[in-house]
Amino acid sequence: MEKVRRVERMVAMTKLLVDSPQKLIPLNYFCDFFGIAKSTVSEDLTCVRQSMEHFQLGTLETVAGATGGVRFIPHRKGPQANDILQEVRERLTEPDRIIPGGFIYMSDILYDWHVMTRLGEIIMTRFMNRKPDYILTVETKGIPLAVMVARAFNKPLVIARRDSKVTEGSAISINYVTGSSGRIQTMTLTKRAIPANSRVLIVDDFMKAGGTAKGLMELVAEMNGIVVGTGVLVATELPNPKLIDDYEALFTFRGINETTKEINIEPVYDS
Amino acid sequence: MEKVRRVERMVAMTKLLVDSPQKLIPLNYFCDFFGIAKSTVSEDLTCVRQSMEHFQLGTLETVAGATGGVRFIPHRKGPQANDILQEVRERLTEPDRIIPGGFIYMSDILYDWHVMTRLGEIIMTRFMNRKPDYILTVETKGIPLAVMVARAFNKPLVIARRDSKVTEGSAISINYVTGSSGRIQTMTLTKRAIPANSRVLIVDDFMKAGGTAKGLMELVAEMNGIVVGTGVLVATELPNPKLIDDYEALFTFRGINETTKEINIEPVYDS
Repeated sequence: MEKVRRVERMVAMTKLLVDSPQKLIPLNYFCDFFGIAKSTVSEDLTCVRQSMEHFQLGTLETVAGATGGVRFIPHRKGPQANDILQEVRERLTEPDRIIPGGFIYMSDILYDWHVMTRLGEIIMTRFMNRKPDYILTVETKGIPLAVMVARAFNKPLVIARRDSKVTEGSAISINYVTGSSGRIQTMTLTKRAIPANSRVLIVDDFMKAGGTAKGLMELVAEMNGIVVGTGVLVATELPNPKLIDDYEALFTFRGINETTKEINIEPVYDS
Repeated sequence: MEKVRRVERMVAMTKLLVDSPQKLIPLNYFCDFFGIAKSTVSEDLTCVRQSMEHFQLGTLETVAGATGGVRFIPHRKGPQANDILQEVRERLTEPDRIIPGGFIYMSDILYDWHVMTRLGEIIMTRFMNRKPDYILTVETKGIPLAVMVARAFNKPLVIARRDSKVTEGSAISINYVTGSSGRIQTMTLTKRAIPANSRVLIVDDFMKAGGTAKGLMELVAEMNGIVVGTGVLVATELPNPKLIDDYEALFTFRGINETTKEINIEPVYDS
């Protein structure tokens, strides 16, 4: 009976950890939740960590001391990343995705939380060492991906708007020129969204010339924040160079053959 | 050693299930992943289900037959729901949230994925018997909540835009009058977003008179879809009645005392 209880406790412990990626949970939380001693919690956590690492499902990080605890890191790399990228590539190359003008219809994938959770974890893993405090995107289509990156980092998401609304209090607006169409656009961010000196990771679904990303960088600069990187789902191969240098894409879009309806898009695989 | 292995397998199994809410996973997937017999998988799943139900962390649903499998349902009700609602209420009543004009600053909470995951599960649990095929919202601030509701249902999210972009192909636009300000606004939805006869759950962050929700209902009707309900985070007490009848809010906002800076907002608790 005792053995069954241990297994059941480990199930619940795993659920509580996985539910809260990157959140530091004090060991006492588990002591109270399960009514067990700290030494038992430590043993259980060692077992959870070994299992996750064995099956490449992430890892646990332990922080020692009075303010310490344990956090679940949803690492996704190597085969666990490449399988997802391959699966998304297959969906992206379906011929009926072509929209007149050389665009690809991606909304069904962008709003498929199952895929986005995993892509968010891949982006988190690739930018982990940049240690962002905030994830920044601009409305609308990049938001689900940005939510999932923010979830994987357990950091707040900040969304720049393309208009200015009174419900947000005072705001900073910038005008920027989109690199592809050359149109002037406006982006707005509420003033209290990003404190000075914050480290900001920019996330977006699509990058062509990089005008939007450059606009977001200027917005961060206006707030005295620091851009630590830009992660996008799909970047076009051309133009090259783009308006910003420091970006990473999960996919490179090389173009569409309008006759054969072939979509040429390649993942940037983990090595 | 064998016992340790079972525990480690259960940890990994829990992780895989929790990672994919509502997704039907064939038992063979676990047979292949762990290299074990189906009877062992069944035993393990029984243990996972018992543990989750014991600790009120959700449940597992088993579907028999050749196309069957198991799915994790992230139920959140009773104390597990009320504790979160109470915690969010405390944050929402902080006096520095008041914005001139009688609004409340909510963005930090709306973009806190940890809270939003849990609120999304509460909304899923409350609307579960409506069986939606799609979750619909309108840009921008309701999106993180809608993402988390969609994640808890494992259903696609559809986002109506306040403008019309070429990258989405042909689209349907409607004009609607906001109930509170009486302004005419436009909402646009790409045509292939919602197939005819789909069951649609509308999700938004804030409802005053209900004009936006009514506009979304008209947009769904234009696509021959069926609105099965409307869930919002915060609804104001007045005006009453609103432009739509069938909605449920997690919080009722009764007003702000501009002198004492008290925010009067109450959760709709689970009974």
